[in-house]
Amino acid sequence: MKTGKFLTLEGVEGVGKTTNLNFIASYLEEAGKEIVTTREPGGTAIAEQIRGLLLNHNEESLCDESELLLMFAARAQHLKEVIKPALDAGKWVLCDRFTDATYAYQGGGRHFNMADISWIENFVQKGLAPNKTILLDLSVEVGLKRAASRSEPDRFESEKKAFFEDVRQVYLDRAKAEPNRFCVVDASQTIEQVQQSIACYLDELLLDNV
Amino acid sequence: MKTGKFLTLEGVEGVGKTTNLNFIASYLEEAGKEIVTTREPGGTAIAEQIRGLLLNHNEESLCDESELLLMFAARAQHLKEVIKPALDAGKWVLCDRFTDATYAYQGGGRHFNMADISWIENFVQKGLAPNKTILLDLSVEVGLKRAASRSEPDRFESEKKAFFEDVRQVYLDRAKAEPNRFCVVDASQTIEQVQQSIACYLDELLLDNV
Repeated sequence: MKTGKFLTLEGVEGVGKTTNLNFIASYLEEAGKEIVTTREPGGTAIAEQIRGLLLNHNEESLCDESELLLMFAARAQHLKEVIKPALDAGKWVLCDRFTDATYAYQGGGRHFNMADISWIENFVQKGLAPNKTILLDLSVEVGLKRAASRSEPDRFESEKKAFFEDVRQVYLDRAKAEPNRFCVVDASQTIEQVQQSIACYLDELLLDNV
Repeated sequence: MKTGKFLTLEGVEGVGKTTNLNFIASYLEEAGKEIVTTREPGGTAIAEQIRGLLLNHNEESLCDESELLLMFAARAQHLKEVIKPALDAGKWVLCDRFTDATYAYQGGGRHFNMADISWIENFVQKGLAPNKTILLDLSVEVGLKRAASRSEPDRFESEKKAFFEDVRQVYLDRAKAEPNRFCVVDASQTIEQVQQSIACYLDELLLDNV
């Protein structure tokens, strides 16, 4: 059976995920791949409602356990409705954030036990994981400055610098632990340099998949 | 430290939970207890939004994993915002459904592994459980007939009879396994008889708590 590839794009605020997501989608489409571009948390009508609960500022503060369970509730829905059907149809799925973000934000940022996150990951994903992950890495200071110039910060973007240092560290640790899955791109380079690195990596991927 | 008691009321559709919840609250208030009446899924602004996702009919069908995780996400929020603060303040909490319903509906009805539910229960509740649980038991046939005469069925009430047979069986199994916590009331009796049974049980509880 023909199965597509599952690619994810990760990084802290301000690393340029949106710009590069569009670049990657176009690049792969030009190479003849059928691409489904999606995002987390979200990607389906129900999961986008859960995203609202996660990202909006509420009068009632969302507790950490709820945050973690809502992330995976949205993910279960997203996997069933969007990601799995697309992969089964031989399409490539390109997702703006996935479970690495949960380890980074809820594990690193909120200090949840990684083994607990891993239990819930297995419960929901039953082994399904991205084939490849591009991590846009940038110092937290520069990333937050870039992000601040854009729009009102959401509930996560309102966190302090130390939170994002922990998030970034978990991302880097995970990339180090799984070098075959991760491609770490230095996002402090110019956009042309960043996209050249990404293109180079995508060319290898495409060669593997002829 | 003064700590309140945590009472829950359980049962399938149509057993008379709402009527009897009001009766229990009044009875305990007359005995001088300060009562917080609440419900699951729900009980806080965020948890009520999650309740909407769980109970409403959506064009997109909610997957079982999402359903289970949303139940516990709402519960984590409910525990932090309502149940624990009330118990810590010495109040009695009376909750329309709690985790026994998750075992019954998602374990019995949806066939989730009980050990998986138990893992998530521990992750969220860290040992916190109801002191006493009143289970209103009724044959599924009679319960569904009563429920059907009320209003448009929600997402759970639209399930088939076999689903509720499984739900009822798990409730009864749990009551048998924890006889000190559960009081099973035969809800096929007249409302006067049901409330006499409940009152008798509450009197014992109040004596224990002088």
